[in-house]
Amino acid sequence: MLDIPNSLDARIEALLLRDEVERFNAEYCARLDRADLNAWTELFTVDCFYLVTSRENRDAGMPVGLVDCEGIGMMRDRAFAILKTSMFGPRYLRHMVSNLRVDPPKPNGDFSARANYMVFEVLYDRPDARILQIGEYHDIFARTTDGELRLRERRCVYDNLLVPTALCLPV
Amino acid sequence: MLDIPNSLDARIEALLLRDEVERFNAEYCARLDRADLNAWTELFTVDCFYLVTSRENRDAGMPVGLVDCEGIGMMRDRAFAILKTSMFGPRYLRHMVSNLRVDPPKPNGDFSARANYMVFEVLYDRPDARILQIGEYHDIFARTTDGELRLRERRCVYDNLLVPTALCLPV
Amino acid sequence: MLDIPNSLDARIEALLLRDEVERFNAEYCARLDRADLNAWTELFTVDCFYLVTSRENRDAGMPVGLVDCEGIGMMRDRAFAILKTSMFGPRYLRHMVSNLRVDPPKPNGDFSARANYMVFEVLYDRPDARILQIGEYHDIFARTTDGELRLRERRCVYDNLLVPTALCLPV
Repeated sequence: MLDIPNSLDARIEALLLRDEVERFNAEYCARLDRADLNAWTELFTVDCFYLVTSRENRDAGMPVGLVDCEGIGMMRDRAFAILKTSMFGPRYLRHMVSNLRVDPPKPNGDFSARANYMVFEVLYDRPDARILQIGEYHDIFARTTDGELRLRERRCVYDNLLVPTALCLPV
Repeated sequence: MLDIPNSLDARIEALLLRDEVERFNAEYCARLDRADLNAWTELFTVDCFYLVTSRENRDAGMPVGLVDCEGIGMMRDRAFAILKTSMFGPRYLRHMVSNLRVDPPKPNGDFSARANYMVFEVLYDRPDARILQIGEYHDIFARTTDGELRLRERRCVYDNLLVPTALCLPV
Repeated sequence: MLDIPNSLDARIEALLLRDEVERFNAEYCARLDRADLNAWTELFTVDCFYLVTSRENRDAGMPVGLVDCEGIGMMRDRAFAILKTSMFGPRYLRHMVSNLRVDPPKPNGDFSARANYMVFEVLYDRPDARILQIGEYHDIFARTTDGELRLRERRCVYDNLLVPTALCLPV
């Protein structure tokens, strides 16, 4: 029998979960940065909710966002539209995540998490990297029957929006 | 009995401690970003030391800083003054922490740590996020009798200072 | 005997390895930020390969980089040259790493990893911090006979290059 006290078990479990989300978010960013939007949509549940909204709206209690997808079908349509309009063409993106906070899972395995994000943009004909968007992810994670993490909800609450067209870019 | 070799035990303990500090720093930043400065002061010990100073000063061996609080009373006065002057009003802040390094605890439980930090500012009437301050935290952590982490010392050593008034903002 | 299931063992081992690389990268950045380039070269293997190249070149399948060191001798020459030309003189640098992804080790102990990086520059006579370079590390790690991590390969693939002289600065 394993003689680790329950509290240590619990701490290790919390650590493993936080690490799993760190790796999930790194993979999420990597897919966006290499413009693989189909692979991006695979990180969401079928009944997912994806929202990009301003901190100002959120603080005012307005649930509406400028980008708002309900369900994997809308996500895929959106990914297709972005690729079709070639928004990705003339720029590189670089997503970075930090300050992750993970809440304990509920009985059904879902759990909420928060993290800060930064999106940098590099246009091909300009030498400098611009901060396109910074903000916070408000997430609800779920597990597939295989035990893989998926996003049931991701609300991207941005502090700033450099240019209105940036809303066409996935966060 | 548990048959994990001591070295593995020690590695897991170091890992758990580093994770605990990561979560502490994420919570620290979250309190500052939502302008909850009273909650911010609760993350320090009663006899805390909080300093904001330039890398130039530090490299020159000058211990003095432009912001310098000794004890929780001064911290609370400072938090009150910042809120009173409404410095937080016309802007959003976003603190991010990375590159954490944690030293092993001393017999009394105190330990030192370092991390890099970034503070971004978004003014309400401007679309771009500015790097307000980047630098390094030089910390000494202590534990309460309940085992919670508190900052006994936080020295914020900034590489840059975008505007002198930025010193009024907590880091 | 320890009754932890193998899968938990494996998860903890992966976690410990990821943590070790996080600490390695934090130390790597710290040595660069304090301009201790000799200590920087000690983080590489004798037969190391160090490359700084653009994302554009990499995407085009061009293996050549603008900075290209093969072996510890070239690394040391480079460090000496940078210090000699006092490129470090009139500026502070701050390296930050995030979004770490670590692959499982091969039988010989080597493993590959990726991370995002940012390099900020602060010139002494300007108040703002500039994003000098952002990009991705493509690494192969090895272990010394003492079990310490070393970089066998680090390919720094930058999204942007603010100024051509920035190539003289280590990443």
